[in-house]
Amino acid sequence: VKDTNIPPNVIRRMPRYLRVLDDLLDHNVESVSSRQLGDILDLTASQIRQDFSRFGEFGQQGYGYNVALLRDEVASILGIGANRTAVLFGTGNLGRALLNNFNFKKYGFRVLAAFDVDTTVVGSEIAGVPVYDIGEFKEFVRENKVDVAVLTVPGNTTAPIVGEISKAGIKSVWNFTNVELQRLSNTYFESIHFSDSLLTLGYHLVRQYEYSKE
Amino acid sequence: VKDTNIPPNVIRRMPRYLRVLDDLLDHNVESVSSRQLGDILDLTASQIRQDFSRFGEFGQQGYGYNVALLRDEVASILGIGANRTAVLFGTGNLGRALLNNFNFKKYGFRVLAAFDVDTTVVGSEIAGVPVYDIGEFKEFVRENKVDVAVLTVPGNTTAPIVGEISKAGIKSVWNFTNVELQRLSNTYFESIHFSDSLLTLGYHLVRQYEYSKE
Repeated sequence: VKDTNIPPNVIRRMPRYLRVLDDLLDHNVESVSSRQLGDILDLTASQIRQDFSRFGEFGQQGYGYNVALLRDEVASILGIGANRTAVLFGTGNLGRALLNNFNFKKYGFRVLAAFDVDTTVVGSEIAGVPVYDIGEFKEFVRENKVDVAVLTVPGNTTAPIVGEISKAGIKSVWNFTNVELQRLSNTYFESIHFSDSLLTLGYHLVRQYEYSKE
Repeated sequence: VKDTNIPPNVIRRMPRYLRVLDDLLDHNVESVSSRQLGDILDLTASQIRQDFSRFGEFGQQGYGYNVALLRDEVASILGIGANRTAVLFGTGNLGRALLNNFNFKKYGFRVLAAFDVDTTVVGSEIAGVPVYDIGEFKEFVRENKVDVAVLTVPGNTTAPIVGEISKAGIKSVWNFTNVELQRLSNTYFESIHFSDSLLTLGYHLVRQYEYSKE
């Protein structure tokens, strides 16, 4: 890494680059220009060149980028291949959807266990992941290296669970609850707020209808 | 609306304001200063004042904001109360999780129908929402006003469905698939890419471990 002070917006674009590069690889595309990437991602070619130049020199002037090499560089920037581990809290519909359908492995994560309070699921497996009683969480973390806690619990149970997670020394939380988690000094939160996304869409709907009335 | 050219980052903060204001209302908080909001949201007080001032004058110098009034203003900016309608494509785990657990109504949306190809679910209801065969989609849209299509289908089926949605005249797509949808002139896409979020978290994990080694 050349530049250690990368703006959040640049970081947020890296997963999008990875997604597009994976897609190009799937279609056997060998090289791609910054302009082509820009067209796909609705960004300018110079923005894309600038983003990558923060991490090193990946392209050759006039030849574009080698898709496979650039893909590997981006994957490495994002820590794919670092054998990350995760545990999941809450095996309701959403937790179940993630365990069954989300390709954690593709992104370098292995889900070691799920935790729930529901005695009818404790002891079972979901997509090969064992479900334990939430009371067994502390011991599990003492005995296993856990990088990420995935939070798919009801909103009102979030705060105490986050406290436990942080105390147990897990450094990152992937938060699907609708709760605005307070920053903790030793824990990084990455949140997916479905409602924020739908409301952003709602904002644009208001304007779309206004435009079409004009 | 005072300013019609609102930067995307400001728009993205409005749902967060709403979430926090709803939370304050739940706790019977009557007024809040921009500084207090800033502390909760990890923003500066002046950023918050600037954001709201784009939409009008909602606070009184030295008195802060009335929580209930500000909440209603933000809700109106986001189009809550406009009686939006949605249909959902794909009743797998994720589609089911949304129908069962996501509070569409709270955000001003009513889900009219779900569509699937799976004959074992077609004809049933999920959380009160009828599931129809995907072949009935066109007719449904002709007979019902549909504002938003929610996409929770497998990635490889996304492109043709998006084409149909756009042709049917639905103006907005809430996309949960892992596909980078190309911009269409008459359709707005709002995407939730789980992988982008997890990878952003992975990026920070790399750096967290680097710091802790130092």
